[in-house]
Amino acid sequence: MAENEEIDVAIVGAGVAGITAALYAKRKALSVRLFESKALGGQAAEAVWVENYPGVTKAKGAQLMQRMSEQLKEFGVEAEEAAEVTGIEKKGNLFELDINKGEEKLQAKSVVLCTGGKYRLLNVPGEKELYGKGVSYCATCDGPAFKDKTVAVVGAGNSGANAALFFAEICKKVYLIEFSEKPGFDSVYEKPLKETKVELMTNTQVVGIEGEKHVTGIKYKDKSQEEKRLAVDGVFIYIGMQPNNELAKKLGLKLNEKGYVSVNQSNKTSMEGVFAAGDITGQLAQIVVAAGSGAIAATTAFEFLKGLK
Amino acid sequence: MAENEEIDVAIVGAGVAGITAALYAKRKALSVRLFESKALGGQAAEAVWVENYPGVTKAKGAQLMQRMSEQLKEFGVEAEEAAEVTGIEKKGNLFELDINKGEEKLQAKSVVLCTGGKYRLLNVPGEKELYGKGVSYCATCDGPAFKDKTVAVVGAGNSGANAALFFAEICKKVYLIEFSEKPGFDSVYEKPLKETKVELMTNTQVVGIEGEKHVTGIKYKDKSQEEKRLAVDGVFIYIGMQPNNELAKKLGLKLNEKGYVSVNQSNKTSMEGVFAAGDITGQLAQIVVAAGSGAIAATTAFEFLKGLK
Repeated sequence: MAENEEIDVAIVGAGVAGITAALYAKRKALSVRLFESKALGGQAAEAVWVENYPGVTKAKGAQLMQRMSEQLKEFGVEAEEAAEVTGIEKKGNLFELDINKGEEKLQAKSVVLCTGGKYRLLNVPGEKELYGKGVSYCATCDGPAFKDKTVAVVGAGNSGANAALFFAEICKKVYLIEFSEKPGFDSVYEKPLKETKVELMTNTQVVGIEGEKHVTGIKYKDKSQEEKRLAVDGVFIYIGMQPNNELAKKLGLKLNEKGYVSVNQSNKTSMEGVFAAGDITGQLAQIVVAAGSGAIAATTAFEFLKGLK
Repeated sequence: MAENEEIDVAIVGAGVAGITAALYAKRKALSVRLFESKALGGQAAEAVWVENYPGVTKAKGAQLMQRMSEQLKEFGVEAEEAAEVTGIEKKGNLFELDINKGEEKLQAKSVVLCTGGKYRLLNVPGEKELYGKGVSYCATCDGPAFKDKTVAVVGAGNSGANAALFFAEICKKVYLIEFSEKPGFDSVYEKPLKETKVELMTNTQVVGIEGEKHVTGIKYKDKSQEEKRLAVDGVFIYIGMQPNNELAKKLGLKLNEKGYVSVNQSNKTSMEGVFAAGDITGQLAQIVVAAGSGAIAATTAFEFLKGLK
């Protein structure tokens, strides 16, 4: 690629949203490059099983992402892996992108940010080893398999409370575990949580997850600081998600109170020529939702480039 | 099914949005029924080929919809076909639905409207016969196959102008045909259309589409009222889409100026307990976008039912 090449759209992040945006942009005959700091697939590639992506019956996350990227290749775009956008700046009507700290510079007429987010980890023994074997960060994705079982939801903020209420419908027993003295969820959650069989445990620190082939329990410490055990079949960790918003900040985009990029229904950000899609917008963190928003963002970028929006 | 049954969510319309909403609602352990006045699949089932649904490489629209409905069945929901919601009314905190004019009545705590829209037809000879063989209503879906060919876009409103600009990038020749004396597109389209090879023909009425196995041309009348011919490889008809908003009107939902149901980013309508997804919301009419919005609508319905939103 030539230095100082000028393209129509630079898409940052080759997860679901970015791949879909690239697919739509390319089919609109735009010149597109798709940059990925790590390996393509994003969070979705880490999903052990995907059951709720319409039209695809039970695929491994990595398989589904592989299929998406092959489809994209057929249209002539290949995600550039290990290509981190380390700098971004608006210069006149163009955006100047710096790849891997000076390895390449290019100009783009528009940018679609699909930099996603990442789940905060507990960082306790067993968490990584048992991921996909009872440890999960998404009740909507993995929860239904825990019908009639016992689960612990770790983190009693709003999303943890939401997950606990879902499990209350289908599980034998649900623990909602909170490190602090008081749960962080909004007051609207109090009544429904009381009405269900969710057992709220505050002042409780999870210190390990146990199991061989599958989760069998957690180790925790309460106020007594003694190590205790709880037998559970699943551990759903809801201690927050972090938007990968470094580039958004560099551009000075408007973020919401949690640090996600604010977009309108056409996926426009606060800056002309910059669009965002997928988890970085703070929308429902689901593969199909990310894909839908990627399609919209690319279509709006096309209209912007034609001088229409 | 018992008369006066009470369910959590009634989903109206088993196109992409409705099927996805049902999938998500069921996986949240809600009691769900999915009503379809005709046969499941909606507009998507009519697509000859779907190439831009991420993760599914070139499938027939009907096949993709079949796959989605089988996936839904695996989770225990079956679309009820030939079951038209002929009446809907809010009674206290519940919605009363009338199926097939008195065949059944049921109560639902929430409603997700996925009633979609339909393309307006030209109603000329050849249009139906050559559908999928050069006749299309969606440039985004079917346009890329017309690279280096000649196409006519019929209808010079904004969406027709948008399609024409896209074809200008990839086609040998593009006609933009308008029945009226003046095109209906906004002034922002004037400049980009002039700069491209789009030939605008006003006062032109398409009276037929010709071709055997594939479109070869159109017949039209201009001011002279003489019948003329134009050789084209594709005809993209953009004379409007009509939202299927009868039920939305019965409920008194807020509609936008074009008759689509207004929703916020969580797919809530103006009425508590009523959500909408897919083409009925006037969003980008794409399968993946409809699916994404169906997932969001069902998730918001779940939160509403738990007293959270």
